[in-house]
Amino acid sequence: MNEANGRILLAHGAGGRLTHELIESLFVRRFDNKPLAALDDSAELKLPDDCRIAFTTDGYVVKPIEFPGGDIGRIAVCGTVNDLAMLGARPLGLSVALILEEGLERETLNRIVDSMADAAKEAGVELVTGDTKVVERGAASGLYIVTSGVGMIPYGLSLSGRNARVGDAVLVSGTLGDHGITVMNAREGLGFEGDLRSDAAPLNGLVENMLSVHSSVRVLRDLTRGGLATALNEISRASGVLIEIEETAVPVRNSVLAGCQMLGLDPLYVANEGKLVAMVDETYASGVLRAMRDHPRGREAVRIGTVLKGEAGVVMRTPIGGARRLLMLDGDPLPRIC
Amino acid sequence: MNEANGRILLAHGAGGRLTHELIESLFVRRFDNKPLAALDDSAELKLPDDCRIAFTTDGYVVKPIEFPGGDIGRIAVCGTVNDLAMLGARPLGLSVALILEEGLERETLNRIVDSMADAAKEAGVELVTGDTKVVERGAASGLYIVTSGVGMIPYGLSLSGRNARVGDAVLVSGTLGDHGITVMNAREGLGFEGDLRSDAAPLNGLVENMLSVHSSVRVLRDLTRGGLATALNEISRASGVLIEIEETAVPVRNSVLAGCQMLGLDPLYVANEGKLVAMVDETYASGVLRAMRDHPRGREAVRIGTVLKGEAGVVMRTPIGGARRLLMLDGDPLPRIC
Repeated sequence: MNEANGRILLAHGAGGRLTHELIESLFVRRFDNKPLAALDDSAELKLPDDCRIAFTTDGYVVKPIEFPGGDIGRIAVCGTVNDLAMLGARPLGLSVALILEEGLERETLNRIVDSMADAAKEAGVELVTGDTKVVERGAASGLYIVTSGVGMIPYGLSLSGRNARVGDAVLVSGTLGDHGITVMNAREGLGFEGDLRSDAAPLNGLVENMLSVHSSVRVLRDLTRGGLATALNEISRASGVLIEIEETAVPVRNSVLAGCQMLGLDPLYVANEGKLVAMVDETYASGVLRAMRDHPRGREAVRIGTVLKGEAGVVMRTPIGGARRLLMLDGDPLPRIC
Repeated sequence: MNEANGRILLAHGAGGRLTHELIESLFVRRFDNKPLAALDDSAELKLPDDCRIAFTTDGYVVKPIEFPGGDIGRIAVCGTVNDLAMLGARPLGLSVALILEEGLERETLNRIVDSMADAAKEAGVELVTGDTKVVERGAASGLYIVTSGVGMIPYGLSLSGRNARVGDAVLVSGTLGDHGITVMNAREGLGFEGDLRSDAAPLNGLVENMLSVHSSVRVLRDLTRGGLATALNEISRASGVLIEIEETAVPVRNSVLAGCQMLGLDPLYVANEGKLVAMVDETYASGVLRAMRDHPRGREAVRIGTVLKGEAGVVMRTPIGGARRLLMLDGDPLPRIC
């Protein structure tokens, strides 16, 4: 890489010799699998009979690209694994498209791709195909990543935001707002003390635990942009139900709460990268909760509410007996958080 | 869209109300299919038994975003359809991830997404899932698009850059360099006269025609970044064969040749968005050529060379009887061409 002085050149995106060298050194060494090693433009995946697949994509533009508990590579892998997991799908393969800014340090890029490799290993998924483009200085900030994923949906399983039923228990897998406040703190140099760390993590293992409690799980949704309040609004609309949650039951770390208060934010609207909400058959709710707590990514899982009959919407009961209507996120209090 | 004055706001990428409105108005209306309409984070696709799928991704950063014969939306759809087609796969679904610059005009975005819808219809593929992010002014130029695709590989078919065999005929589907020179002309205001138009087009129909000539096609590669010379080098390396082409047989439009000469470029290295090269069993080469010419995207298909025994590499025979070794593209003479 002498000719590049350890930095990304436009020619690394031109499709020629330098692109090949970059892909060999960046991906083929770290992600050692047959479809990727073929270096054809598509990867071939073999599927079992009578198969339904889940297919998803997500772009990542988080700023800064590295922060406590994660980086843009980690959330790019986890976010796509999690989107697949929310349909109950086991990941079969991921693709990665990089848009790099000319001049990006190779060392930085290596760290990000190392982090992708670590996250992929943690999730048990392979990166099977990809693409790299380079834009000139100033036409991107560092790098953007788009990951897509294909997963296999187990036979007979049907999870969807449309499946919530009156009486279902509403569970969350842990504390809310950690990712968003950590990124804001890192970006703005707010200097909040304490244990702020992104929760970025693959949730497919947690979901497998939950699905082992027979057909009790109806809806899963990961709590990314827009946070819990937006996810609940989406589910409420899609299923045509009212969702009620208890304010005191919603878990938020003190450090995150302090950060939210200083920034004038509501943790219910702040992005997470390793948390989910589930609508679960009331009868089996305690069994699903136990299964969640048995997994490292669900130790702090709790029930926060119930699905009710009524006009679509989300209502939060406050400790003093009041009720507050939670709307979808409006505006963008936390740009480029993922 | 009053609140946005017809322009994209950061809040359109925040995951809340404006994101939902944008997605509804931009995608759900244009791409009317069941997986997309569910608006879950992943799309579910049903597959037949004993299925192998192809999975691919590509990023698009072309500048300008609109040019004669196409735009960033058209090449984003065609490029991904074509990557699938190069494995012989029939497209099952596409995903699209948009990275928008704050302030982008809604009108421009609408035109680009209309163009994606037209190209998808032309290719007979559905857009089934997506994601939209917005970065602040100056952190992108207009918009970047990443499309991924899943396709079904017909039973028993195996195309790969590793399959070229000594004696195979080398065919191209039409003239070379049209896309690259058209984009350069539009971007730099070079003012070349004539019939310059991008060749951006889906090639899956052409490939189906070619594959109907029993199992005679061994390698397909679309001629994007790096052009014909780079694609031939990739195939030559992957298959461990020497590839020889005839300079006089390679079809290049006069207007493209003139543009290349003014810019000091070699059309063999210039990007195409609707052309492919094929390595075909010699015995059936004329049948495959006829099948190609029967399709609108292959009217000007010709044989340009032969696969030979020898050290991996690409050699071009010149009209005066000489031979020139063609290397992979080095450097980036045409940045942001796709």
